[in-house]
Amino acid sequence: MDRRTEILSARNLTMMTDLYQLTMMYGYFKKGMAKNEAVFDMFFRPLKTSSYAMMAGLENLVYYIQNLHFTQDDVAYLRSLNLFDEDFLENLKTLKFTGEIYSVPEGTVVFPGEPLIRVKAPIMQAQLIETALLTFVNHQTLIATKASKVRYAAGSDTVMEFGLRRAQGADAGIYGARSAIIGGCDSTSNVLTGQMFDIPVCGTHSHSWVMSFPDEVSAFRAYAEVFPHACLLLVDTFDTLRSGVPNAIKVFNELRAKGYEPLGIRLDSGDLAYLSKRARIMLDEAGFHNATICASSDLDETVIRDLKIQGACISSWGVGTQLITSGDNPALGGVYKLSAEIVDGVTHPRIKLSDSAFKVTTPGYKKIVRLYDRSGKATADLIMLADETVDETKPLTIFDPLQTYKRLTLTNFKARELLVPIFVDGELVYKLPDMHEICAYAKTEIESLWDEYKRSMNPHIYKVDLSDRLYALKQSMIDEYVKA
Amino acid sequence: MDRRTEILSARNLTMMTDLYQLTMMYGYFKKGMAKNEAVFDMFFRPLKTSSYAMMAGLENLVYYIQNLHFTQDDVAYLRSLNLFDEDFLENLKTLKFTGEIYSVPEGTVVFPGEPLIRVKAPIMQAQLIETALLTFVNHQTLIATKASKVRYAAGSDTVMEFGLRRAQGADAGIYGARSAIIGGCDSTSNVLTGQMFDIPVCGTHSHSWVMSFPDEVSAFRAYAEVFPHACLLLVDTFDTLRSGVPNAIKVFNELRAKGYEPLGIRLDSGDLAYLSKRARIMLDEAGFHNATICASSDLDETVIRDLKIQGACISSWGVGTQLITSGDNPALGGVYKLSAEIVDGVTHPRIKLSDSAFKVTTPGYKKIVRLYDRSGKATADLIMLADETVDETKPLTIFDPLQTYKRLTLTNFKARELLVPIFVDGELVYKLPDMHEICAYAKTEIESLWDEYKRSMNPHIYKVDLSDRLYALKQSMIDEYVKA
Repeated sequence: MDRRTEILSARNLTMMTDLYQLTMMYGYFKKGMAKNEAVFDMFFRPLKTSSYAMMAGLENLVYYIQNLHFTQDDVAYLRSLNLFDEDFLENLKTLKFTGEIYSVPEGTVVFPGEPLIRVKAPIMQAQLIETALLTFVNHQTLIATKASKVRYAAGSDTVMEFGLRRAQGADAGIYGARSAIIGGCDSTSNVLTGQMFDIPVCGTHSHSWVMSFPDEVSAFRAYAEVFPHACLLLVDTFDTLRSGVPNAIKVFNELRAKGYEPLGIRLDSGDLAYLSKRARIMLDEAGFHNATICASSDLDETVIRDLKIQGACISSWGVGTQLITSGDNPALGGVYKLSAEIVDGVTHPRIKLSDSAFKVTTPGYKKIVRLYDRSGKATADLIMLADETVDETKPLTIFDPLQTYKRLTLTNFKARELLVPIFVDGELVYKLPDMHEICAYAKTEIESLWDEYKRSMNPHIYKVDLSDRLYALKQSMIDEYVKA
Repeated sequence: MDRRTEILSARNLTMMTDLYQLTMMYGYFKKGMAKNEAVFDMFFRPLKTSSYAMMAGLENLVYYIQNLHFTQDDVAYLRSLNLFDEDFLENLKTLKFTGEIYSVPEGTVVFPGEPLIRVKAPIMQAQLIETALLTFVNHQTLIATKASKVRYAAGSDTVMEFGLRRAQGADAGIYGARSAIIGGCDSTSNVLTGQMFDIPVCGTHSHSWVMSFPDEVSAFRAYAEVFPHACLLLVDTFDTLRSGVPNAIKVFNELRAKGYEPLGIRLDSGDLAYLSKRARIMLDEAGFHNATICASSDLDETVIRDLKIQGACISSWGVGTQLITSGDNPALGGVYKLSAEIVDGVTHPRIKLSDSAFKVTTPGYKKIVRLYDRSGKATADLIMLADETVDETKPLTIFDPLQTYKRLTLTNFKARELLVPIFVDGELVYKLPDMHEICAYAKTEIESLWDEYKRSMNPHIYKVDLSDRLYALKQSMIDEYVKA
């Protein structure tokens, strides 16, 4: 078994669910509703920090679904809660996932309100998996999205993920680093993530290395001797410009005399714009024009953008806490809402009302079609009932479902369905792509977006519209409730 | 094997470290420094949201240390990086932890700048474990601290942890819930955490239950039939006051007619102050004075405090996203700094300077003593060299190490050492307490703090001072660097 499979399968997380999933399952079971099928959509509410999100977390979900089963111990624990009867507990012992899951692939750019994942399954199963599905996808999508913002700010510079020690637990570190790579980071300091997913790993030394030697130059010299091909020195342990950079240059000269070129230096504190400009001059004057200046120190996309505007001479960014926690917005508001029930073979669409028009759910068994213009840029997404089709040869008029006077007629467009089958009849029908495939796909996804959607402040809002039939269905259901 | 041990031991996380730990280990190995011992302190920088923190994460650390070893696959992967030679890789194959770890117990109230954990070990081992130690303790301490703020705001009300679906991955959900209980929550919705740690679990039903029935009253009636002893109904699926509460009262009357008393209702949206007051009147008028009103909906300590000030009739709080992510401060700035090296049996204290006086590290092999006044309240913590003692029979003068004119002489005080041995010579010497013991201890810890330290805004700053000897050592080392 490879390390990825080993770690992803090591724990049975079937019990990692909210208790109310089990009490509702019990209710459906006792009320003779266990044979009903339910359709749930996973989607997210608008983010305050981004107009789009980048999907991640599907791989975890696949392993979770394949592992889904209650052990004898689990059933014994549930019995001890004195909530459930023996018929139900017996039933749990044989429960596995037999339903259908469609999802957008990892790396897909997605927008608020559209289903990233659609589950159709016997209602007890569909309910059981809600919590873990949301945990995986909310977290990993959040971090991939944040990473894509950092990547956008950094342009073509190198971006390294450094956040493991500030991650919210081991999974946040492991899968957060993976998500950061999907979002556009080049490498991670996290060795386990590197091993599991064949991702480049990076790292040199910390302050403690320097403190373990009698003085800074001895520490630098020792490091250069051990890693002559990969000598990158952290220069801020005592005083960056008076001690760190001069000592680094001294050791770089010794290295060059032995026939090796240094990689460069890392700044980890102080004013990075000022220090990097001064250090660049010092390195250039010493003849080390190719020595890179890396920076770390509570960076995020906003700080990187500001430093670049101020001409900081930094071409490699180590991003830690703010990326691995999505510091300015540490949770994606992903939800999982019932959109239809299938009773005795008949599909009944379901809707949840709300005071806020945006929070009214969209009923039915649906799909998403993304519409591209002739240049290959995404123009709008259309949520449709699953049996509808788009005819690319005819003009298509779309409209905003809340402000319906906003209309647009598309000609010469391409349409692509975003949801792909992952599980059908409980069987995995999807070949999980490797990280190279996911990252290449994610890159084309970001490139298909106009820059206007990628601004941090007041980005343009992407169109997510409903088909005529779906709009009519939703309106008729709202009208029915309002009349009642 | 119990479920706790099974889950905590399921994965070997030895490779969950930053690459620079391995490059530094290689450097120490190649430079003949592998026999040196290093002393590291784990401490945290001041939090913007709290004057104190509550320690959690030790149990994870213990399992991690016990599991520490590189497998053949791990070594093969490290070989593939082309950074390390065979001598070193051979050495890794037999690496295990042989050092010493002292820590404050989980549930201890701790303050910025003081060592929560002290590691003394061969330098390669001490360096290797840095990242995982910080990951576990930073995350869990953060959540326990946040939970203690929520508990303080909620007074004697019930507080339920509901955040699993918004947690940053599975570990954040599992250990975040455990940390929330340490911090003072009464129960969690997370079934796995309940099972692993013998923690009360809670939960009833969601909107999807209501949507799965032809109408709200049928859904409520069905729920009451299945759980007549534990009937708590979510009343906001359609319209809280016009539909939800009246339907709940109808079903409560039916329940009472069968001889059962309802538990109450849950509000999950809208203005919770207004809705709870109106719902309270409706329930009281219908004769359900004992029916509880629970609330959830993006709560945290600030919202709870405001709702209570406005007289909201809520006595049970479901706290999700903001607690499980520590939404207003999603990372604890915990660091792990070299404070001494032991070379050929001689201890050399180490210091790291910084532009900011607070960031200058405190050298030496140290301990913490907490000083209590005659009422049992904590007055100050004193960081001392490990071989120093406090004489409770004599007056003790302490002073602020940055503003040394701030002095205080204590008489009639009690002193308690906070760091206790966890590992000695690589062996676990600590009996991990169960959750009941940890929670009882955490409660006494919080009670030993004056309320002035618990305010959210501008709390009083707790005194963390240095002993005379330690202060003199630190000053002399600073002077040496400044002279040099």
